[in-house]
Amino acid sequence: MTQTRTAASFAPPVMEARRWLDGVDFPADRPLINVSQAAPVAPPPEALRRHIAETALHVPEAHLYGPVLGLPDLREELAAQWSAAYGGAIAPAHVAITSGCNQAFCAAIAALTGQGDEVILPTPWYFNHKMWLDMAGVGAVPLPTDAALLPDPDRAASLITDRTRAIVLVTPNNPGGVEYPADLVRAFFDLARAHGLALIVDETYRDFDSRSGAPHDLFADPGWADTLIHLYSFSKAYRLTGHRVGALIAGPERLAEVEKFLDTVTICPNQLAQHAALWGMRNLGPWLAGERGEILDRRAAIAENMPRLAAQGWRLMGVGAYFAYLEHPFDMPSDTLARDLVARAHVLTLPGTMFTPAGDAAGARALRIAFANVDRAGIATLFDRLANL
Amino acid sequence: MTQTRTAASFAPPVMEARRWLDGVDFPADRPLINVSQAAPVAPPPEALRRHIAETALHVPEAHLYGPVLGLPDLREELAAQWSAAYGGAIAPAHVAITSGCNQAFCAAIAALTGQGDEVILPTPWYFNHKMWLDMAGVGAVPLPTDAALLPDPDRAASLITDRTRAIVLVTPNNPGGVEYPADLVRAFFDLARAHGLALIVDETYRDFDSRSGAPHDLFADPGWADTLIHLYSFSKAYRLTGHRVGALIAGPERLAEVEKFLDTVTICPNQLAQHAALWGMRNLGPWLAGERGEILDRRAAIAENMPRLAAQGWRLMGVGAYFAYLEHPFDMPSDTLARDLVARAHVLTLPGTMFTPAGDAAGARALRIAFANVDRAGIATLFDRLANL
Repeated sequence: MTQTRTAASFAPPVMEARRWLDGVDFPADRPLINVSQAAPVAPPPEALRRHIAETALHVPEAHLYGPVLGLPDLREELAAQWSAAYGGAIAPAHVAITSGCNQAFCAAIAALTGQGDEVILPTPWYFNHKMWLDMAGVGAVPLPTDAALLPDPDRAASLITDRTRAIVLVTPNNPGGVEYPADLVRAFFDLARAHGLALIVDETYRDFDSRSGAPHDLFADPGWADTLIHLYSFSKAYRLTGHRVGALIAGPERLAEVEKFLDTVTICPNQLAQHAALWGMRNLGPWLAGERGEILDRRAAIAENMPRLAAQGWRLMGVGAYFAYLEHPFDMPSDTLARDLVARAHVLTLPGTMFTPAGDAAGARALRIAFANVDRAGIATLFDRLANL
Repeated sequence: MTQTRTAASFAPPVMEARRWLDGVDFPADRPLINVSQAAPVAPPPEALRRHIAETALHVPEAHLYGPVLGLPDLREELAAQWSAAYGGAIAPAHVAITSGCNQAFCAAIAALTGQGDEVILPTPWYFNHKMWLDMAGVGAVPLPTDAALLPDPDRAASLITDRTRAIVLVTPNNPGGVEYPADLVRAFFDLARAHGLALIVDETYRDFDSRSGAPHDLFADPGWADTLIHLYSFSKAYRLTGHRVGALIAGPERLAEVEKFLDTVTICPNQLAQHAALWGMRNLGPWLAGERGEILDRRAAIAENMPRLAAQGWRLMGVGAYFAYLEHPFDMPSDTLARDLVARAHVLTLPGTMFTPAGDAAGARALRIAFANVDRAGIATLFDRLANL
């Protein structure tokens, strides 16, 4: 018997971590601090919900099948805003709307690879990327990053074989938080182009980048569409996680391939979510700036609280967007530690082992803290608990 | 270079057919009759839309990530209603909610097959099934049906090899409309079980079956979960096509595999759609009965109008659910005919070639009429136009 697609991969880490909570009591004076999932825990602003209720729901087409590649107005809005933000020429015809950013990645891989091909992923990687490559029969070639969690283009070059089809970057990074410098992203683009590979840049967390201006100059390259596939999620910016809406930007030939995948898997993205995302893009710019400010303040709180942990032997490897990625000082692998932390510290984190290949030493020493949902006081409490283990 | 997943398949037929309309003028006195897509063209009942606006939108969790396998209340409701309808024991733990029924099929195949495996599909087949098998590297083994569009279990048995993993039935059938007799479905179940295969039964159109009572007795078999995977769509029953919500019912071990796929591709089904489907299941039974009655009346209109076409050499191969499947009398392949019909008859249909393997003689003689959106008067006009070619 051949191995089935799903048997080639592992169980969803977030669901597995949730099961660690089973049977553990969290008293009111020491409640669980859940820093396991990168997701808003509040609904979108009331004005957006009102837009859905009072406007979108009354558009008959919002209940019917729509174009496979998404709502034309949303494709146009994204193209216009992205062209301005990145200083590039992005047309609506370059944009596909997807049922979340995970699906955008799946579609990109389906358009780029076949059985036995290879894709280079910096480690720690985003586990759903690894899961999809497993299911697609594609080798995920790990590219270990340096002490600051940055990948090295020269090291990537040494991993390229005649089966390599793409390199994947996630910036700001999940799980590492680190924002890749523009010249590093450009170096990967040049490397990919020189070898005829695609460069997939997942910018799910772009709206929470601490830098001003464009995070890279790839879209300003007149030939970007031959190499670059950009991924985005509306989930984080507008608190639409439960609505499943993301995007993929690529050249038209690749988009025609992506369209086949999206048609087959979901026919079209759900329509209300697209109307919500469009309204968000048009109206929630100032609100989103405030959200970003709050996330940046929480990031600062992580840095401020870090010395206490550093004194205990912890190291902050990366911080940014929704994440802090920590090296722990204990003589146990991170998956054991993360499980222990539920009962001992009433803290739910994901271990580095979930973001690295089996047996990876760096993964065994790391924990991911998804801090976006925890305010300054909560971050202080979290660090107290970790410092007092 | 290996062939990419998407290059292994073809462009979405519905989108291709829509492009045939480009540049064709349809005057007001002879408008286009579009019988190409199996989808409601009206929004869901006002009470359901009000439920979304006034209740679901105010549930904070309806905007957040939910469980990969879906809203627990919806899983429970489906299990209860299906247990009653099919006379079987279906637990909530057997149910996965998906982002539409296409995704349910993709998940089932990912859980059952690996590269180079085979799945038996009666022809004419549903093209998105064929597309997904192509992308999954799975051989779609065509099982030609008889003059009444029914597949023969003995013929299927002769196609089973050591690579076969599943047999797929769609009943009521898309594109054929035909309702498979319960004993035929049972014979396929017994065949699949005897060979250790899965039987996937796609019942997207079950709510419009002309028969009363359970359409098959498989769920009454205490061992159903070892063999059967049932697929369903909420889209047709409650006019939720644009909301993307479907379901898959299987044994718990297979569901754990399905969960990996769903997590990786979309994380969770969109939440508002699940609340809408739940409300529909709990409140729209009588309304749905009326919808079914209307569809059955349109089906009757097809039969009543058929003699005029039969006199011209047409033959009704199958009719039911949303579809009539017709053999045409012309000396040209159906894809040429379907394209001609746009300009000559102002009718958009899909040709049998879209539902059959390349070069299939039966497909070249067939047209699919998706009549659900056309009332009695429209059906008479449609048949007038076809009879007067």
